[in-house]
Amino acid sequence: MTLPRRVDIREVGLRDGLQLEDPLPLSAKLELLDALVATGVREIEATAFVSPSKVPALADAAELAAALARFDTVEFSALVAGPGGARRAVAAGIGSIEYVVSAADGHSRANVGRDTAEATAAIADIVAIAHDGGARLEVIIATAWDCPFDGPTPARRVLDIVAGAVAAGADRIALADTIGTTTPGRVTALIAAVRPLIGQLPLGAHFHNTRGAGLASAYAAVLAGVTRLDASVGGLGGCPFAPGATGNIATEDLVYLLRDCGVDTGIDLDAAIAAAGLAQRLVGHELPSALLRAGDRWLGS
Amino acid sequence: MTLPRRVDIREVGLRDGLQLEDPLPLSAKLELLDALVATGVREIEATAFVSPSKVPALADAAELAAALARFDTVEFSALVAGPGGARRAVAAGIGSIEYVVSAADGHSRANVGRDTAEATAAIADIVAIAHDGGARLEVIIATAWDCPFDGPTPARRVLDIVAGAVAAGADRIALADTIGTTTPGRVTALIAAVRPLIGQLPLGAHFHNTRGAGLASAYAAVLAGVTRLDASVGGLGGCPFAPGATGNIATEDLVYLLRDCGVDTGIDLDAAIAAAGLAQRLVGHELPSALLRAGDRWLGS
Repeated sequence: MTLPRRVDIREVGLRDGLQLEDPLPLSAKLELLDALVATGVREIEATAFVSPSKVPALADAAELAAALARFDTVEFSALVAGPGGARRAVAAGIGSIEYVVSAADGHSRANVGRDTAEATAAIADIVAIAHDGGARLEVIIATAWDCPFDGPTPARRVLDIVAGAVAAGADRIALADTIGTTTPGRVTALIAAVRPLIGQLPLGAHFHNTRGAGLASAYAAVLAGVTRLDASVGGLGGCPFAPGATGNIATEDLVYLLRDCGVDTGIDLDAAIAAAGLAQRLVGHELPSALLRAGDRWLGS
Repeated sequence: MTLPRRVDIREVGLRDGLQLEDPLPLSAKLELLDALVATGVREIEATAFVSPSKVPALADAAELAAALARFDTVEFSALVAGPGGARRAVAAGIGSIEYVVSAADGHSRANVGRDTAEATAAIADIVAIAHDGGARLEVIIATAWDCPFDGPTPARRVLDIVAGAVAAGADRIALADTIGTTTPGRVTALIAAVRPLIGQLPLGAHFHNTRGAGLASAYAAVLAGVTRLDASVGGLGGCPFAPGATGNIATEDLVYLLRDCGVDTGIDLDAAIAAAGLAQRLVGHELPSALLRAGDRWLGS
């Protein structure tokens, strides 16, 4: 178990971070986007193409997507819950599509009205839509460790989705701790079970800090072979359909930890803290980020 | 790097946790102590024998010590800053003395008015006082990674204290991240450097969660061979002489993480969460504990 030289952080504040908030005007999202791009981050989850009535904060997905072309240093992604969303995302010019499959039937039904097997069976169609549109397709496995309705998720259910995603031609796989319950030992065990199935496909992970263990889980994931981590500016975030879920791990807290472990993220910490301060002002309430309160350590004179 | 079956958590809420708070009456401390003992914890840092004018919240050290005899399942410790405090602690019947040596001269002078070399030279006298009184002596190395006055601490300064402590007959060594700046990679590196010097002496670690990485650092420490971790109920804590320091890692958050990694702590999580709720009521402000807000995960039916 050794650390890689580099980890790719995907900034998910604009999507996972904002979806529970009162809707922000497009101009505020673009202001935050400017601050995020200035941090040096190379991947940003910009929005989701899902039901506007279910997630009103992201109802401006197409308008936001139309404004992204000017940021040519960043790969933008959007989350979808089915073929319709994938088609809209591709039509809007999104280059990277995230399709979420919940490993637990309870969460899957609450989230998208289908069980896990049905959602898994749809992967091939969504891969085709993405690839026909010139986009890559990532399968994100939600409730990979625990479901708020079904309890602990058997690893077998996760591995079945992974196998289905690989067979269907997905370009990337990610494991999501949707309700913020997992811990380093469980992270290490699940990643060890998943890796033999995915060959050279990049493996990502997505953690919430609900029980304080988000950064510990991220560290364990990187030690276990994950090279892609989601994080949100300021620790914004949650899931409206997963009771008890709170914010994602904060981007700036993760950058601090990885920098001091000798892992390059390409993100400037001072700029990331500034972006977190802006995010906090825009949403109008305190965010859980630790670095936003404490600042960087003194690196010496 | 494998996890041990068991880690000993020392509850430091009554000392490190309360020293920055407005003084609590002895009756409130005893109420909290009852709740802590009920969690199954086997070691509690009860107080400090230091200047009452510098740390008024712990001015009742001798009275508190006199009330500890009824808890015969717990090993109580007290922190001291020099020979005088060690004599008072032994006289009060404390069975385990913690002597703090700051690895950075700046913090050492601010904390106890001596530089690191002078504080290290005093270890032998304090070991003799402890052993003559039938107590064990632990050397806690403060600012082991960073000092708020001097910046990053050279590992050589830590290793010199370790060597001095071993030569002087200390029974235990611990490394303290006094201002909450360290991260897993630096934890792993320092522990790897310390272990060859200490033979079979137990090695402990003490983390603050100031930059969100406290639990990640604790996990890395356990992977690297630490078998003793300090934590405080509810995440109470800080250091009045270290600007920017905030709470210790929360006992219940650490218990949750270790339990789900298959590491036994002997502490009941529900009882630990209840104790954190009591601590929050007693100090009268919100504590940073994650488990106190989110509760245990659903382990399945």
